[in-house]
Amino acid sequence: MDAGGRVPYRPSLTQAARPSTFEVAAVDEHGERRDVPVAGEHPLTLYVDKRELLTLMTLGAAPEALTIGYLRNQRLVESLEDIVAVQVDWETNSVAVTTRGGLADLEAKTARRTKTSGCGQGTVFGDLMEDIDSVKLPADATLTQATLYDLLDKVRLHETIYKQAGAVHGCALATNAPRHAEILMFVEDVGRHNAVDAIAGRMWLEREDGADKIFYTTGRLTSEMVIKAAQMGIPFLVSRSGLTQMGYEIAQKVGMTMIGRATNKHYLLFTGAGRFRA
Amino acid sequence: MDAGGRVPYRPSLTQAARPSTFEVAAVDEHGERRDVPVAGEHPLTLYVDKRELLTLMTLGAAPEALTIGYLRNQRLVESLEDIVAVQVDWETNSVAVTTRGGLADLEAKTARRTKTSGCGQGTVFGDLMEDIDSVKLPADATLTQATLYDLLDKVRLHETIYKQAGAVHGCALATNAPRHAEILMFVEDVGRHNAVDAIAGRMWLEREDGADKIFYTTGRLTSEMVIKAAQMGIPFLVSRSGLTQMGYEIAQKVGMTMIGRATNKHYLLFTGAGRFRA
Repeated sequence: MDAGGRVPYRPSLTQAARPSTFEVAAVDEHGERRDVPVAGEHPLTLYVDKRELLTLMTLGAAPEALTIGYLRNQRLVESLEDIVAVQVDWETNSVAVTTRGGLADLEAKTARRTKTSGCGQGTVFGDLMEDIDSVKLPADATLTQATLYDLLDKVRLHETIYKQAGAVHGCALATNAPRHAEILMFVEDVGRHNAVDAIAGRMWLEREDGADKIFYTTGRLTSEMVIKAAQMGIPFLVSRSGLTQMGYEIAQKVGMTMIGRATNKHYLLFTGAGRFRA
Repeated sequence: MDAGGRVPYRPSLTQAARPSTFEVAAVDEHGERRDVPVAGEHPLTLYVDKRELLTLMTLGAAPEALTIGYLRNQRLVESLEDIVAVQVDWETNSVAVTTRGGLADLEAKTARRTKTSGCGQGTVFGDLMEDIDSVKLPADATLTQATLYDLLDKVRLHETIYKQAGAVHGCALATNAPRHAEILMFVEDVGRHNAVDAIAGRMWLEREDGADKIFYTTGRLTSEMVIKAAQMGIPFLVSRSGLTQMGYEIAQKVGMTMIGRATNKHYLLFTGAGRFRA
């Protein structure tokens, strides 16, 4: 319930997570046979109001949140209230989305396809840079070095599919207190943009705002990753990996605080130094 | 010239590689300012016979080969002879492809979009699994452990953008002699499927067949990566990274010899053990 005693709106959802790892047989360099855990990968075809939109390849750990976050990050729906139901069916590898008003301008939005540098989905419908000028990230938010180190420590200790099976990217949404960070959500997927989108979907479902959060990713900071974090309203973007020139330029443009190569007690602060307290 | 004294056909091509790295300013954990090399990332919009197809985000190191390999791997053109010209223009971030006969069935092929688990482009037009049944990989090719180790050593010593700037994936095409491997092509890109496609484009341009080669990638062995290597007719697929369940299943189905977690003198042989000599 919210402050007014009302139950927040929630679409009708299945709970259809798939097992994340499977064992396959392999032979190592000593000729020894080993059973090795590998990450799942499944096609999931999105139908919106009975119309086929596209097929995502996914780990399948959070298919409902992935679907909602995909529609959110592609700006195909404006708010959670536009979504009536999200029904995943692994028998047919499909997810049926029912919307309140239909995706009226879907034709226009899907007319331009951009294949981006991100792992995973790659494609962004519409103009990649569209709307980015309208993003306002909070100027008064701050992140301390102590909080960053606490986050990196918690990420390091987090139980992950990556540690078991590799071949996935992880994303986390964390709180940002003066010396402490708490991981609120941690999603892994075979495509790193699926992981980001699943976080975006869960943020809508759990009514989490981005302004007071930190976004962490194991993946590279390409243009698409920076744009998605900005659209989610998150002022702090932290990655274990490096960045691209365009990721850097967009982070500067939107005034995001972006930190790369962050692991243990090492990092590089690339943009938005005004919000960071060393 | 080929054996008959004829000059092999070659489309009219620009040579429009972009610089791969750029320096940006960063501040490290000690508060020291550092200039850090980062990988380039540029939009490149493909026009085929003056019709806009899509926009790729690319490092820009091999835009002509990337364009040709993209059209090849998406099965939008049948052979190099179908391509008259590939003209890259970075002033407008575009590449104009002129074909001999037009892409007659482009509508049908672009109707179904699959977003895959790969880094980079992600999308495969048409049915991901279409044609995979028709792939025949040579049964009598063999790879020795000594050749694998030689390849891994050469990859390790290869000068790369990754070592300078991170944030890119690399792919290599190598020869396969009894105890020796030679890297014929090495391409890096911000999207690993761009790197694969650029190799596919160069293989057409340089008339290289896949049957007697090894394909190496720094990236994960997802369904799309395995399908692309199979389409290129390469029986050996080697990766530093892990694999997904669907990558494993498709490699088994097409009878590919697939080796993951390959670094230094370690590896895991997952499929196609009949072609491997330890």
